[in-house]
Amino acid sequence: MPEVKRIEDVPALDVSDGKEIVGVRKRLLIGPKDGAPTFAVRLFSVAPGGHTPAHAHPYEHGVLVLRGQGEVLTPQGPKPIGPGTVVFVKPSEFHGFRNPGPEPLEFVCIVPVHVES
Amino acid sequence: MPEVKRIEDVPALDVSDGKEIVGVRKRLLIGPKDGAPTFAVRLFSVAPGGHTPAHAHPYEHGVLVLRGQGEVLTPQGPKPIGPGTVVFVKPSEFHGFRNPGPEPLEFVCIVPVHVES
Repeated sequence: MPEVKRIEDVPALDVSDGKEIVGVRKRLLIGPKDGAPTFAVRLFSVAPGGHTPAHAHPYEHGVLVLRGQGEVLTPQGPKPIGPGTVVFVKPSEFHGFRNPGPEPLEFVCIVPVHVES
Repeated sequence: MPEVKRIEDVPALDVSDGKEIVGVRKRLLIGPKDGAPTFAVRLFSVAPGGHTPAHAHPYEHGVLVLRGQGEVLTPQGPKPIGPGTVVFVKPSEFHGFRNPGPEPLEFVCIVPVHVES
């Protein structure tokens, strides 16, 4: 039967390391434990002043911003993002997400399921 | 370079057939044309009184509701959905989405990329 849950019932894990990752909480909305065969769906919340790692890796990201204002780092510099922004990061592309604003930045980030396995 | 776009810049296609699919518009936010290797991300808007097909297929759906109120059909009957609801439909599970409410129902729906190829 289709699984139905609510975002607030999914634990939010603090994934910050104080260096490359600052002020970041992650909820694994859909992943291996749900029996997902192809992709995993995560929800990230980046606190004001926080950021995800500025890096590249061999898998892609599909991102949809839900709340807040921020920027995505690209090889050509930062680009503004906000509610309704879609970002597609292809495998091996440099990227990072920053929240220089006063409110939490929330976005969905989809990856191949092996990333969460 | 990461691709950055806005939802409103993605064409909304009317995918209704007047029978199984009523009042449904679809935006392909991320798909094969973006170079997506694994998954595709679609945004659906179901008008008041509208619905998607009640069916099953051999691939999964990852769904996050953004706006409106509605229900997901399951073999055990309909279940309510609204903003913040996550639905995971495993391959071959029966499902459908309905909007009996007065406002548009909007949700993200992720599938393996071959579905959009």
